[in-house]
Amino acid sequence: METFFSFLAKRVDDCSSLLCVGLDPHPSDLPAPTADAARDFCLRLVKATASFAAAFKPNAAFFELYGPEGWVALKDIIAAVQAESDRLGSMIPVILDAKRGDIASTAEAYAQSAFEHLGAHAITLSPYLGKDSIDPFLACKEKGVFLLCKTSNPGAADLQDLPVTIGSKNVVPLHVHIAQLAQTWNSGDNIGLVVGATQPEALARVRAAAPDLWFLVPGVGAQGGDLETALLSGLRGDGKGLLINVSRGISRAENPARAAAEMRDAIINIQYTLKH
Amino acid sequence: METFFSFLAKRVDDCSSLLCVGLDPHPSDLPAPTADAARDFCLRLVKATASFAAAFKPNAAFFELYGPEGWVALKDIIAAVQAESDRLGSMIPVILDAKRGDIASTAEAYAQSAFEHLGAHAITLSPYLGKDSIDPFLACKEKGVFLLCKTSNPGAADLQDLPVTIGSKNVVPLHVHIAQLAQTWNSGDNIGLVVGATQPEALARVRAAAPDLWFLVPGVGAQGGDLETALLSGLRGDGKGLLINVSRGISRAENPARAAAEMRDAIINIQYTLKH
Repeated sequence: METFFSFLAKRVDDCSSLLCVGLDPHPSDLPAPTADAARDFCLRLVKATASFAAAFKPNAAFFELYGPEGWVALKDIIAAVQAESDRLGSMIPVILDAKRGDIASTAEAYAQSAFEHLGAHAITLSPYLGKDSIDPFLACKEKGVFLLCKTSNPGAADLQDLPVTIGSKNVVPLHVHIAQLAQTWNSGDNIGLVVGATQPEALARVRAAAPDLWFLVPGVGAQGGDLETALLSGLRGDGKGLLINVSRGISRAENPARAAAEMRDAIINIQYTLKH
Repeated sequence: METFFSFLAKRVDDCSSLLCVGLDPHPSDLPAPTADAARDFCLRLVKATASFAAAFKPNAAFFELYGPEGWVALKDIIAAVQAESDRLGSMIPVILDAKRGDIASTAEAYAQSAFEHLGAHAITLSPYLGKDSIDPFLACKEKGVFLLCKTSNPGAADLQDLPVTIGSKNVVPLHVHIAQLAQTWNSGDNIGLVVGATQPEALARVRAAAPDLWFLVPGVGAQGGDLETALLSGLRGDGKGLLINVSRGISRAENPARAAAEMRDAIINIQYTLKH
């Protein structure tokens, strides 16, 4: 059986890309704030950038916004990624950015919604409720989860940077502890982390704590994170392990296809420089 | 302008109840796992228990499960609470149990979905992303948020009980720090906390840290929390400040109306005993 991260690694090899294209149809970027406009916005992006995308990451909030019609649009977009995958002969994973987090049968229902109903391959989750809130997602063995670890917003420091005492005297920032937990929980090759690019020193700390995991990295571009510093701080020894998410930097470009291709190539160049 | 918690306090006075009726249509409790069955299940519960309910708490996961149809059902149920409120001449707040948590325009979209599209009056949120992930919800001044603080599941200990160092040497469990933050953030009278009944000593600690806030309390009954101990540990000085959530204990009762009435009366009796 293929795990989510073996599936992702195969796609990364197929397209020589660590680029994750964020599908964030901000209402202000649409001709009208409707589910149809959100769908059109995303379908154009998917078609334009599929060749260069290691993954797509639709943001659930910008679809929930429209109620039932939004839910239909979200499902359509995930199906469109599947259609592009078929056309390219290489399956592109879809990571649903939903940041869910609940327990027991509630978590099972969220997993069923994301993986079965919508057809996503992975989901972002909050770790605040602990391991038993993640288990129902991990039970879907071919699917993946990305746990929020160190996010790219200013308020991230409120909790994620707090010094926590583990055992009798080991003191680490909370986000490092999450990374350590995730590394130990990853026996099924299906746990990754969300680690923002806006604080490269945190990215390096998280990499040290979780040397094997894939990180989904928001914050490059619009939020101020530097691509080269992020790659330098976060790439694994094998030159992989990071999915660089770009949303507005591509969707607002005059030519999204070219912007995606340029981002893919910029990543390749930095990977090459770091290796040699 | 009325704040969420003045609205809630008015309803609590109108019905002499601290009972929150959880609307959790577990698929296994339905004749068939469909959105229509989930709707019927909840509509029956709303009609049977509205007289005794200080609030209703629908669980978003059990509707998302069915995609667009589930979203329609959830909206119908919130509208049904409004209709019962009109019939009773006393507005009953609806707390959407969604445990969302995201930033900036994404958080704005979730707030719009919960408050404008669905018509909920409050929402549960994860605090992991920090204050700026909560602000877009607080900007809806007549609505409320309940931040996850100390949940009722076993895995809650993984993060929520970690000792964090605040300032130079003040060490408290993470959930107590969340309570302290929430107390200071509550200038708009619109922040409450989710605190489980399964660990009454934690409930008492959180009450000490946040003397003014309302707590939404799951875990009484099916999960093993004791009602009297929870009230003793968590009631404010004014004999209010707790919303005791009961889901399966009412929905699976032979007579849900009677079960809700008995739970309301049991709370009143304990309140009276504690006061005298």
